[in-house]
Amino acid sequence: MTGAPLEHPLPAGMRDLLPEEAAARRSLARRVLDVVTLHGYGLVTLPAFEFAEVLERGLGTLDPSDVLRFVEPESGEVAALRPDMTPQIARVVATRLRDRPPPVRLAYEGTVVRRRSGRARKHRQIPQVGVELAGVPGPGGDLELLALAADSLRAAGLERFTLDLGDAGIVRALLAGRAPEEQARLTEALARKDEGAVKDATLAALLRLQGGRDAIVEGTQLLARTPAAEAVARLLAIFDAAVARGLGAHVQADLGEMRGFAYYTGPIFHAYAAGTGDALVSGGRYDELLARFGCPMPAAGFAVDLDRLTEARRAAGVPAEREMRVVVIVPPGASPARAETEAPGDKPGVGQDDDARVAELRGRGVVAVAFGGSPEAARAYARAWGFTHVMEGPALAEVSC
Amino acid sequence: MTGAPLEHPLPAGMRDLLPEEAAARRSLARRVLDVVTLHGYGLVTLPAFEFAEVLERGLGTLDPSDVLRFVEPESGEVAALRPDMTPQIARVVATRLRDRPPPVRLAYEGTVVRRRSGRARKHRQIPQVGVELAGVPGPGGDLELLALAADSLRAAGLERFTLDLGDAGIVRALLAGRAPEEQARLTEALARKDEGAVKDATLAALLRLQGGRDAIVEGTQLLARTPAAEAVARLLAIFDAAVARGLGAHVQADLGEMRGFAYYTGPIFHAYAAGTGDALVSGGRYDELLARFGCPMPAAGFAVDLDRLTEARRAAGVPAEREMRVVVIVPPGASPARAETEAPGDKPGVGQDDDARVAELRGRGVVAVAFGGSPEAARAYARAWGFTHVMEGPALAEVSC
Repeated sequence: MTGAPLEHPLPAGMRDLLPEEAAARRSLARRVLDVVTLHGYGLVTLPAFEFAEVLERGLGTLDPSDVLRFVEPESGEVAALRPDMTPQIARVVATRLRDRPPPVRLAYEGTVVRRRSGRARKHRQIPQVGVELAGVPGPGGDLELLALAADSLRAAGLERFTLDLGDAGIVRALLAGRAPEEQARLTEALARKDEGAVKDATLAALLRLQGGRDAIVEGTQLLARTPAAEAVARLLAIFDAAVARGLGAHVQADLGEMRGFAYYTGPIFHAYAAGTGDALVSGGRYDELLARFGCPMPAAGFAVDLDRLTEARRAAGVPAEREMRVVVIVPPGASPARAETEAPGDKPGVGQDDDARVAELRGRGVVAVAFGGSPEAARAYARAWGFTHVMEGPALAEVSC
Repeated sequence: MTGAPLEHPLPAGMRDLLPEEAAARRSLARRVLDVVTLHGYGLVTLPAFEFAEVLERGLGTLDPSDVLRFVEPESGEVAALRPDMTPQIARVVATRLRDRPPPVRLAYEGTVVRRRSGRARKHRQIPQVGVELAGVPGPGGDLELLALAADSLRAAGLERFTLDLGDAGIVRALLAGRAPEEQARLTEALARKDEGAVKDATLAALLRLQGGRDAIVEGTQLLARTPAAEAVARLLAIFDAAVARGLGAHVQADLGEMRGFAYYTGPIFHAYAAGTGDALVSGGRYDELLARFGCPMPAAGFAVDLDRLTEARRAAGVPAEREMRVVVIVPPGASPARAETEAPGDKPGVGQDDDARVAELRGRGVVAVAFGGSPEAARAYARAWGFTHVMEGPALAEVSC
């Protein structure tokens, strides 16, 4: 209760967005959500944390250093800030939506909190918009999601991006039967693309199979007599179907792709663009996830990382939306900043909103505020708060940034 | 990791919104946010929890049973789910925005978690849109907020509502000098409107001073020679100014009004409407709050409770927005549900999105999904998932709810 100046200490992984950033984020989330809802995906809203037991059904045992968790005071149960929303969606599909006919198409917007890779004890808040498609097995569903991811990126103004296709079943099939520790070690080495640590000729060769259709054809030969033959055939088919679907300018293959959550069972994909090394979109098929929630059903989905998408838009020179926002200079008597010096009730109704120009601008959908000060002060105010114009009398002047 | 069916256990106070409810909520939040941003309020996005120390600077010492709190594992500090967003806004204004010129106009959207009154250990998640106006003292700022609250309710489709005006300074002035325990006891009795427990003629009389302008005039006489004379004069002036401003059909006075947070120092108001006993909007002036964050500045604000607003809209018969959403019946071969039985790559690109009718509807901004099943199944699907129409061949038929 002391009045000492505060820095802005926030709990781990938390962040404020100031007006300019918050408005840009809201507009971007809206663009992506508008596309996915147009495609019939219905928005659900999920709590920011869940009992750890629910998250672990989807994600496997959580490493305590990866996830922010706390003891829920009323029940004594452990709740955690979600590092991923897919297990929550699975919970909702398996419980409150289980009596509705498939296919289930859901969309969500929210923030997940994850440890930054390579940095112990540092968490990052990731704003996402994502979708889940349950009840549509195989390539029909996979293609729907690939096309929707591409549409979402285009709606965000990106034209150049790659969709890296892989299949979680390839490595999964090659590792089946090995000891769990060995599986974990190799999976991690593959995720790091660390050929030296892999020490298995077939797995190491996979890491080099990146690029166009040729990479998959080569993989088909490499894996012909292995348990991964089926998964690589599936990858080739989806690649070809994506090209036929008009995504030829974007699709790439990556046979050793291992990034992403452990729940993936089939095709997986990541979208990349210049300006950020991380994936803008991550998704894939997880046909076994809903069974873990007592509701076996094929499912697939993807999530868009809005921070990475923002970086890619900036790198691509996508112009920021700059809506017109006007500071209207009002006579001193009507200034809200002077209101305190007037006798209350003296000029009832004379206030900043009563200016006819302000009302007229707002009536046309233009953001407007009244300002009782000099033109210079009004311009400084406009610059500080992201207003584009200052109006003095009837004259409207643009404000340079 | 077992597959036993889950109920939907959620941490205390948490709730999912299913598609229909989530879409309605999103649309309502958007209407209110669109109004306040049109008035120049800039959106900020704040984390769902804060260190308890920050919240307590604003709210006073938090009763542990009122607030969900937990030990942040990395720092050992106590974080809490916010019961109110105003202290967070104050933190942002006092730190990251302190160098920008006033007035500060901020808007926020988010969820707070509070204990339900009268029910121990039961928390409620309250979805809010709110605003804060800092740097505008006195009636100018108060009127701006009253008018904006009325505009927000109108934008949500409500025409009949009351704006109950009070002044936190009245009771504050009358209680000044009493022992803190006595103050707390009386404040609570006033909040409960429990005349018997008040045992003070002036305070008890306040509780009966509700209604139109006459109630304030009567209060002016009652409080003429008390320390509350200034606060009641301020209330009368704001009442008159609100009437002059065109809010005469809505404003009411309530001189004993004590609901709300302890930080209020001056005029306060609540909006009510038929269909819900709780306030749709709560707000007021808290000129001492920012000083507690090291940045003395007058401030006022309000928050709209979107759940209560939804109830009031329903009671007022405001029609739910029902956008057109179409299930398009596609030939069996193109059905996504059959895709798994086709040889992959056999019909590349033939999928649910490729139907020309689906593309045409989406091109016009109409939500559309392809469905590979009988007309009967399509209608059942439409009803289950909130689609309004089924399209068979070129024929579009409305679906009854």
